[in-house]
Amino acid sequence: MDPHVHPDVHHIADDIGTMEIRGAAKIADSAATALQIQARESDAETPDAFRAEMRAAARTLHDTRPTAVSLPNALRYVLHGMDGVTVEQLRESSVVAAERFRERLDHAQADLGLVGANRLKDGDCIMTHCHSTAVLACVEAAVDQGKELTAVVKETRPRNQGHITAERLHELGVPVTLIVDSAARRYLNEVDHVMVGADSIAADGSVINKIGTSGLAVNARDRGTPVVVAAQTFKLHPGTLTGHSVDIEMRDESEVLSAEEKAALGNPTVANPAFDVTPPRYVDAIVTERGQFPPESIVMLMRELFGEQTTEPWVEPVV
Amino acid sequence: MDPHVHPDVHHIADDIGTMEIRGAAKIADSAATALQIQARESDAETPDAFRAEMRAAARTLHDTRPTAVSLPNALRYVLHGMDGVTVEQLRESSVVAAERFRERLDHAQADLGLVGANRLKDGDCIMTHCHSTAVLACVEAAVDQGKELTAVVKETRPRNQGHITAERLHELGVPVTLIVDSAARRYLNEVDHVMVGADSIAADGSVINKIGTSGLAVNARDRGTPVVVAAQTFKLHPGTLTGHSVDIEMRDESEVLSAEEKAALGNPTVANPAFDVTPPRYVDAIVTERGQFPPESIVMLMRELFGEQTTEPWVEPVV
Amino acid sequence: MDPHVHPDVHHIADDIGTMEIRGAAKIADSAATALQIQARESDAETPDAFRAEMRAAARTLHDTRPTAVSLPNALRYVLHGMDGVTVEQLRESSVVAAERFRERLDHAQADLGLVGANRLKDGDCIMTHCHSTAVLACVEAAVDQGKELTAVVKETRPRNQGHITAERLHELGVPVTLIVDSAARRYLNEVDHVMVGADSIAADGSVINKIGTSGLAVNARDRGTPVVVAAQTFKLHPGTLTGHSVDIEMRDESEVLSAEEKAALGNPTVANPAFDVTPPRYVDAIVTERGQFPPESIVMLMRELFGEQTTEPWVEPVV
Amino acid sequence: MDPHVHPDVHHIADDIGTMEIRGAAKIADSAATALQIQARESDAETPDAFRAEMRAAARTLHDTRPTAVSLPNALRYVLHGMDGVTVEQLRESSVVAAERFRERLDHAQADLGLVGANRLKDGDCIMTHCHSTAVLACVEAAVDQGKELTAVVKETRPRNQGHITAERLHELGVPVTLIVDSAARRYLNEVDHVMVGADSIAADGSVINKIGTSGLAVNARDRGTPVVVAAQTFKLHPGTLTGHSVDIEMRDESEVLSAEEKAALGNPTVANPAFDVTPPRYVDAIVTERGQFPPESIVMLMRELFGEQTTEPWVEPVV
Amino acid sequence: MDPHVHPDVHHIADDIGTMEIRGAAKIADSAATALQIQARESDAETPDAFRAEMRAAARTLHDTRPTAVSLPNALRYVLHGMDGVTVEQLRESSVVAAERFRERLDHAQADLGLVGANRLKDGDCIMTHCHSTAVLACVEAAVDQGKELTAVVKETRPRNQGHITAERLHELGVPVTLIVDSAARRYLNEVDHVMVGADSIAADGSVINKIGTSGLAVNARDRGTPVVVAAQTFKLHPGTLTGHSVDIEMRDESEVLSAEEKAALGNPTVANPAFDVTPPRYVDAIVTERGQFPPESIVMLMRELFGEQTTEPWVEPVV
Amino acid sequence: MDPHVHPDVHHIADDIGTMEIRGAAKIADSAATALQIQARESDAETPDAFRAEMRAAARTLHDTRPTAVSLPNALRYVLHGMDGVTVEQLRESSVVAAERFRERLDHAQADLGLVGANRLKDGDCIMTHCHSTAVLACVEAAVDQGKELTAVVKETRPRNQGHITAERLHELGVPVTLIVDSAARRYLNEVDHVMVGADSIAADGSVINKIGTSGLAVNARDRGTPVVVAAQTFKLHPGTLTGHSVDIEMRDESEVLSAEEKAALGNPTVANPAFDVTPPRYVDAIVTERGQFPPESIVMLMRELFGEQTTEPWVEPVV
Repeated sequence: MDPHVHPDVHHIADDIGTMEIRGAAKIADSAATALQIQARESDAETPDAFRAEMRAAARTLHDTRPTAVSLPNALRYVLHGMDGVTVEQLRESSVVAAERFRERLDHAQADLGLVGANRLKDGDCIMTHCHSTAVLACVEAAVDQGKELTAVVKETRPRNQGHITAERLHELGVPVTLIVDSAARRYLNEVDHVMVGADSIAADGSVINKIGTSGLAVNARDRGTPVVVAAQTFKLHPGTLTGHSVDIEMRDESEVLSAEEKAALGNPTVANPAFDVTPPRYVDAIVTERGQFPPESIVMLMRELFGEQTTEPWVEPVV
Repeated sequence: MDPHVHPDVHHIADDIGTMEIRGAAKIADSAATALQIQARESDAETPDAFRAEMRAAARTLHDTRPTAVSLPNALRYVLHGMDGVTVEQLRESSVVAAERFRERLDHAQADLGLVGANRLKDGDCIMTHCHSTAVLACVEAAVDQGKELTAVVKETRPRNQGHITAERLHELGVPVTLIVDSAARRYLNEVDHVMVGADSIAADGSVINKIGTSGLAVNARDRGTPVVVAAQTFKLHPGTLTGHSVDIEMRDESEVLSAEEKAALGNPTVANPAFDVTPPRYVDAIVTERGQFPPESIVMLMRELFGEQTTEPWVEPVV
Repeated sequence: MDPHVHPDVHHIADDIGTMEIRGAAKIADSAATALQIQARESDAETPDAFRAEMRAAARTLHDTRPTAVSLPNALRYVLHGMDGVTVEQLRESSVVAAERFRERLDHAQADLGLVGANRLKDGDCIMTHCHSTAVLACVEAAVDQGKELTAVVKETRPRNQGHITAERLHELGVPVTLIVDSAARRYLNEVDHVMVGADSIAADGSVINKIGTSGLAVNARDRGTPVVVAAQTFKLHPGTLTGHSVDIEMRDESEVLSAEEKAALGNPTVANPAFDVTPPRYVDAIVTERGQFPPESIVMLMRELFGEQTTEPWVEPVV
Repeated sequence: MDPHVHPDVHHIADDIGTMEIRGAAKIADSAATALQIQARESDAETPDAFRAEMRAAARTLHDTRPTAVSLPNALRYVLHGMDGVTVEQLRESSVVAAERFRERLDHAQADLGLVGANRLKDGDCIMTHCHSTAVLACVEAAVDQGKELTAVVKETRPRNQGHITAERLHELGVPVTLIVDSAARRYLNEVDHVMVGADSIAADGSVINKIGTSGLAVNARDRGTPVVVAAQTFKLHPGTLTGHSVDIEMRDESEVLSAEEKAALGNPTVANPAFDVTPPRYVDAIVTERGQFPPESIVMLMRELFGEQTTEPWVEPVV
Repeated sequence: MDPHVHPDVHHIADDIGTMEIRGAAKIADSAATALQIQARESDAETPDAFRAEMRAAARTLHDTRPTAVSLPNALRYVLHGMDGVTVEQLRESSVVAAERFRERLDHAQADLGLVGANRLKDGDCIMTHCHSTAVLACVEAAVDQGKELTAVVKETRPRNQGHITAERLHELGVPVTLIVDSAARRYLNEVDHVMVGADSIAADGSVINKIGTSGLAVNARDRGTPVVVAAQTFKLHPGTLTGHSVDIEMRDESEVLSAEEKAALGNPTVANPAFDVTPPRYVDAIVTERGQFPPESIVMLMRELFGEQTTEPWVEPVV
Repeated sequence: MDPHVHPDVHHIADDIGTMEIRGAAKIADSAATALQIQARESDAETPDAFRAEMRAAARTLHDTRPTAVSLPNALRYVLHGMDGVTVEQLRESSVVAAERFRERLDHAQADLGLVGANRLKDGDCIMTHCHSTAVLACVEAAVDQGKELTAVVKETRPRNQGHITAERLHELGVPVTLIVDSAARRYLNEVDHVMVGADSIAADGSVINKIGTSGLAVNARDRGTPVVVAAQTFKLHPGTLTGHSVDIEMRDESEVLSAEEKAALGNPTVANPAFDVTPPRYVDAIVTERGQFPPESIVMLMRELFGEQTTEPWVEPVV
């Protein structure tokens, strides 16, 4: 335990590590709060010392769950906002950045929902894939605006998250037609928008989302149906600025086939990738709490929010 | 019961109707046999009477199962081959046509398999959708030629016919990777051919096949992977020559969702179309027992085999 | 006046030349009748003499209106059907061919209408360009089948033939929305079919039709809307078998701009091409009285109906 | 009348409302001048009061013509430039922003013309749709650079604004070929650039322009001809950042059909949309007075010039 | 040496085997002549014996150069034309078929040239790849028609056959611009046609031609330039009817790199495929001596000329 | 010689002019150093005088080699960074900008290499065109990361720079397959990335690179293979912001054909363009030392680094 890192930061880091604090938004909020505390309480006497403390605090937080999607973005945002030549300037700017991040985060989903809702017209029909709270926020905002919508919901094998979407849409009063994934193209000319979430968004404009998204997007383009991706900016993946591709998780084969079924079929290999990559040319707009963007411009937003540095900002610089 | 129709024809018709005789190939064979008997045994004294008897026999057979795919094609083939100006010429040509049809049919699957196998190279990987005996015939012939193949098999919701394909391929010694339908695009750059069957093929070159085929074909084109459709010529649908579109069966929603699941989701509409339509521009070749064809030329084969008349040949002409 | 050509043929030729006989269908019918008379009445004593007479009769007819679209096809059809080794066989086959041509022609529009109607579903909306009696025949047949249709009608500058279409559709009870040509893309996602006629159809599958057809077809493909061309087979242009391209008429500039307007604009050049060429890859089906065809296969129908010879069949062979 | 709003601002607002001040550029200039006066003359004593005054002045101006395209952008630009922590800083920055906006505006068309002209080569032929002063500025600048150009001008039904373009190009010494809108594809392989203006440009890169632009752009891409959109930055539509789509005006049907004509045709519905939406993938470059941009990056310019806030900057914040 | 095969056939076979007779056209002519002699001179007494003799003769000829492209097609054509139930009918039909084949062949290049020339307009510019006598025949015929043409000639590495094309075009008075292969796209918007020959054409409409053809065709489509393939019908490859793909020859690496160069570069692998495969969707027309065809319909011409049988017609049937 | 320009600046300018200093990176470094000296040593007494001196120094440097690609970008970067209201502020900011530029430049290739390497996976195969040190930097970094790569190298006529690439890759231990340029499409389905350099990159996202790049990119898209352009940011061409297109050098014809060969072919015109233009829609990512970008966003990076002014920053402003 680094003595220069404030005990409250350690405390928050522990809670993230033990999943006491969970959910992308809550984790991000806590991480920003932690850096705010560190900045406020630091008794560093030189700018270099202050910066080193902030990096140490960020590292502590980051190392608790290195693969959590929103955690590094919260840290990057605050460190990117830390600016000045005196300790006081550094402290002040860090605190302000953390505050701004948390405020934004607080109504990000609502802001995003409004942006997405503005793209929908009364009477429109949307097609969804998997389950996305961001997409639901858009629909909910549109319903609140008094628009009547209908939805074609893909079941989204193997885990059928489409069922959750169907249920939530039903609760919002949106009539749902449920289909198997293979039936999507058949209905694309009857829907006005394909609307999906994102697991993360890369610097080259690619959208990483639930397996099946890319195939759907290619067909939507072929049928003349626009594709909208709804995602808060903490889904932007600054690591991809430096060319890193996003690793695609291979999930357990039992989601696809039980052990008995597998044996009965002669024990085929089962490949169960969780996500796929949709190139930007098949996406019409990315809807965020900061407004909507063509996917090709998202890299500039990424740099604006999280900095353009090519190394992780909490790593100690090599001397 | 039409007295001019031979008792054996009635007998065969009954067996088709009661599904004593079943399976597309067996039905077609029996129908051609029946017309052969009718022609051979007819005691019609004028060409017109002979033709009327043949039409009556064909109607009797056709009416037993009006939606069976191979039945009308067998009837069309024989009636299309009936030619001449005397009763004897009509009889002889009908018997010959029926014989030729049955002979072809007998080794059609093997012939088709050889054509499809010739497109495959040693070491190739194919992707399949649903279950098609014609595709299996191609793979089997290729294996017999000593080629080593691998396969990526889509499970094909909602009825998972991909499981049957996986099992059969395993029996042929072909290593299988099983995937959910949504994962197809992810693997398209790793396979050398998409190979699917057909429920029927229309005059405009469209391929009607298991729901999901068209979305797969569009993605295959986008990824540069050729799409091969394997189908015997009795899958050609002469009714489409006259613009009729093929009706797409809507299957029971319980294949997609159990009643309990449905209620739990707020009773969404469930749409479960059995087939979809792939435009010819996404298909590279149709492999039949008569050789391979671009889908745009299949209409000429259809006319050659089954005639170009725009009414059903067993319908009595309006005087 | 060629003494070997029957006086009735000369008489019919005169009537075609003076436009006493007019309209593509009437001209074709009369030309076939004339050749039928020539064949029936010929007193040629050798097969060569008979053939020469038939060619002379065909030349006589052809020269009256060398650019009429249906005239050469009627002649080609009959000469293509003339077959045999004796004068009697040649006579008989020519008479039969002429008869068959005229019978077909008599109900060709109705047959075509039925084929086109079968592609339309109850509740469908079609978009039209220019005015085509073949398209109207399809709509009328569909209405007769009890289908309710609506239509988006392009006005079709510069001569506004869309107005005629709008009026005829109104008479058939089809509700019409009239738009300027530029508004077509805006409405393509709301229509189920683009349905246009053809001025002529080339061996390479190109469709020559009213200026604006090709631009509409390209946009229809981009929006996922199928394009259907309705045209009787006498619109097939056998001359294109030999690579000839169809000349595109340049019409008078006054159709676009009055002389006063032109002067006021500084006397720009006005280019007013009557037709354009739509490549086969943008057309989904060609609907004829012989059934529907992908445009890429139409060359085989052309050869079947009108022969495959690369010179005009009425030209005297070089010895 | 808000007492905190300077009388001169009210005066200017009145002149805008009564259309004493008209034309997009003049309105924008006056609005910036008005905010400049307000800032200069304000006797607000606190930063909050100053900001409230500025918002009130902006609201007063905005409400005179809420749909004018350049007015809100002028207001946004100045309010976006207002920055600082003291009244004096706010005042100074507002005055500077207003000044900078007006200066830019003053030579914006000339700057834009130069950028567009640089894309044209001596001897090039352009195709135009509708009438755009920005396109003309490009042509004029190119002519001033000594380049010889020719133009194919679409007449642009229903209001034939192509006639104005033809006349202006004639005045610039550019030889014109006038065509009906449907003839555009026929000439696309003979022109070097399609060059059109814009009514407004959305955050997702879509170009809203005169009906017919999108269909032309799709065909230009198909023929390999680049599409250039020329538009000053006040055509950027910051409201679309938040997902709002641009409303498409439906104009009077009498532009398309006289009442008599309409009655004669059985009273069809006449649909006369003024504009359509061209997706960014069909546009090669947007030429502005700030340089040229791919349409996918225009959202970043929009944010830079007019701010990224998701609410209108003159709306009072909810406390 | 089969005693039933006529000595003259053996003689011709020897001359083909020793390359005394060479060149695709000469080989085809000689093979047809040989079968004609066999048919004429046969003293077979039963139809079965006659057919067996003809097959034996064909086998003898075929085995001399099993990979010669035109040889099997000449044999197929004659055997496909052999028809009848008596020896005399078989003899007569074989002789006639051989005669017809040879006559056609005699003016095939000229006929083809005329078809291709008809596609070219006065003033057109063509782009060529490799060297094709069929393309040259088209250009020569167009020049004979008084058309002025220009050409952009790709050098066609590694063997620079473009140099031959350049020289021949120069002799025809056609001004040539020579470019490296990589410069093709740069000039595609300035040419009116891409015109290439074919090594062979497959049943699925694919064109096998000199390496680089497919990449050129894809770019031509992207630039809106039509692609014409000129090839006599003996280039059609009936073996592909049964799914066989055409083997692509790998040529010697020394054509690409000398041994010294190779060593200097660290001995890279050198891959030097002679041909590639252009899918039919990138070809606008195939020009033959029988007229022009869309590539998708060429399979029907192949069946018409060479039969539809799926085994080689000279193979002894299995009893 | 301008007396206000420091002697050391003149000295450096001379060394650039005489090519004592050469290579894009060295020239850029020296130019930034020169401006740093000018700023540090200036004894200007007013801000205006200081700015005029800096412009004069920049002009002096620029005029030595007006077409050098990296020189103007170094100058633009420093002048764009010069900021402040006092001489000291201007001096300080200029010195800092020059320093930052040089530091970046120092490890730019290494940074870029890392970004590109991150896109490559162990076992990947890349295809290259021409020779690019930036591409090699990517490969080298990937090899350093322990990844095993293979490469398909196009020889790149007419100057065969592919040979250099082959040799360098061999030195890095990467197995190479060398092909002629025309064979590229044949191998595109077997490679994982196309990776090329850039001569310059335009504001509209176009990539100017060695002739043949654009044709390769179009085929790569057609085959589903991603295209990566590797280029340091000094390849960005700020002049294109104002619509200027990049001039394409026409190189000597002797690179394509010796004088003797040319004469032997009838003296064809030889066209030998050095570069071509690849539209952004065919490029998946541009890899720079600042990270990777979709080509459509590169204009924003260009403005960020080099300013958005539409005139060259060293030109004296017109008063």
